[in-house]
Amino acid sequence: MQIITLAQIKDILPALDLMPAIEAGFVAYSAGQAVVPPVGELLLDKGEVHIKYGFLHDEPYYVIKIASGFYGNPQLGLPSSNGLMLLFSQRTGELVSILLDEGMLTDTRTAVAGAIAAKYLAPKRVRRIGIVGTGIQARLQLQHLKGVTACRDVLVWGRGDAQLSRYRQDMGPLGFTIGTTQDTAEIMDSCNLIVTTTPAESPLLEVAGLQRGTHITAVGSDAPHKQELDAAILGRADLVVADSISQCLERGEIYQAIEAREIREADLVELGDVIGGKAKGREDEEQISVADLTGVAVQDMQIASSVYKESTING
Amino acid sequence: MQIITLAQIKDILPALDLMPAIEAGFVAYSAGQAVVPPVGELLLDKGEVHIKYGFLHDEPYYVIKIASGFYGNPQLGLPSSNGLMLLFSQRTGELVSILLDEGMLTDTRTAVAGAIAAKYLAPKRVRRIGIVGTGIQARLQLQHLKGVTACRDVLVWGRGDAQLSRYRQDMGPLGFTIGTTQDTAEIMDSCNLIVTTTPAESPLLEVAGLQRGTHITAVGSDAPHKQELDAAILGRADLVVADSISQCLERGEIYQAIEAREIREADLVELGDVIGGKAKGREDEEQISVADLTGVAVQDMQIASSVYKESTING
Repeated sequence: MQIITLAQIKDILPALDLMPAIEAGFVAYSAGQAVVPPVGELLLDKGEVHIKYGFLHDEPYYVIKIASGFYGNPQLGLPSSNGLMLLFSQRTGELVSILLDEGMLTDTRTAVAGAIAAKYLAPKRVRRIGIVGTGIQARLQLQHLKGVTACRDVLVWGRGDAQLSRYRQDMGPLGFTIGTTQDTAEIMDSCNLIVTTTPAESPLLEVAGLQRGTHITAVGSDAPHKQELDAAILGRADLVVADSISQCLERGEIYQAIEAREIREADLVELGDVIGGKAKGREDEEQISVADLTGVAVQDMQIASSVYKESTING
Repeated sequence: MQIITLAQIKDILPALDLMPAIEAGFVAYSAGQAVVPPVGELLLDKGEVHIKYGFLHDEPYYVIKIASGFYGNPQLGLPSSNGLMLLFSQRTGELVSILLDEGMLTDTRTAVAGAIAAKYLAPKRVRRIGIVGTGIQARLQLQHLKGVTACRDVLVWGRGDAQLSRYRQDMGPLGFTIGTTQDTAEIMDSCNLIVTTTPAESPLLEVAGLQRGTHITAVGSDAPHKQELDAAILGRADLVVADSISQCLERGEIYQAIEAREIREADLVELGDVIGGKAKGREDEEQISVADLTGVAVQDMQIASSVYKESTING
């Protein structure tokens, strides 16, 4: 059994080409080749814990991922996200590896999924990238978009000047031109590739400002009570893509939009089917598309086994 | 974060008085002071995995336990059970300890629960102990019964001579007089404290031989398709005790007996309520009682925190 520390994971990650692995995971998932039971959830006084687990029939491992969010942690000088991943043998049940990633692999696979959504769903000509939120996911999403769009012009929305200027200071040197705003209407007005990354519990983006030719990826909402998008945005969209339809019926923007009767289950398309060519993605530059990413265990499986395999090559 | 190895756990366990901790866990659970979500389950080609997790409001930790059974493992020279436990802070979500117990703590807390069931439910005068099965749990249950009954006369049932004689050789030196049989009717005939420990999928004990004044603890069945007891045994019992009523409605002997319309949910009593005095246990030497132990996350929480606390004292 091999323990892989956060420091080792940080060394390994840049060497990995994660997009093909995670795309393959989504395709296998949508083709029914993955076993992914419902997400386990533990709600505590100060935080929440999600347990995601499953396996692909053709792979040697099954993966159990524990990820937590304790939103008071920053006041204690600790990151709000935490977690680890466990790899076990499908043949014997033996523990193969513990990846002490402290949530980094979850953050990374979420950002990679955002890049995949943009690759298949964003308009070809991205005018300006809109990022809603200033936290770790707001940073990683933008970094991972570098590989799928040439656009480097960014408008970021945040709740305070301090967070916004820190975001600009940190992300500007990575090659982006960063504008800031505290009004999401400005994002809707000037950006045609928008990523929302907050734990908001009421909509931040209103349908009023929605432009033709916009793609929005929502990654913040991973629980039934969270919502970043006005449900009417999904109702207005030509294309609503779920990372997992079954999961999005229970949590996330799609859950909210179905509750609000803006969309029906039959309207949904799964990301793996778009990637695999079984379902249509964006058909022209004028369509409005929304991708709702609640996070699927196949992403965890793919990133965990990629890191583990790389570590055994170098170990 | 502290990693506790199997070797360290083996050193620590004998120093622990686990019965009070696990009894307290059952009492808290039945009093509604524990948060224990439904068991997560992963069914693979060669085995099955259960994820049990939860917390007690008054404790500093929450616990996630992963336990697997891969029944072809012995042919590969590996134990069939495996697993680990994880302790996290309820305050911050930080990983506090990884207990690499390889299933030993699950085996132990199950045996302790069997001893607790016998303490509260077995007749005062145990004539002979009947053990159904010859595996690890058949051994641990008997060892843990030492503290709750003076009886040392044992009849063990198994499927083969080799297993039975190994059981006798191993358990005799621990102070027991071990008889063996390949006919469960002999167990029913001569034993009034019976523990069933197999992964059987059809009943091993038939109602025909059921005697007055018998207590049976069933620990083998932890999944809907498993069954060790004729459902009519539960129908005939004066007292049917569940470790967790909600869990036993979905898996185990009680699930089977309700499906067979031998008992109703209203007939059930929870072990923690018997321990805590809120429900009646055995009232006389003539009653027939059955305890169905499917394994509850509070047991895992209690044994994991007991081991962790002891390790920090000695560490």
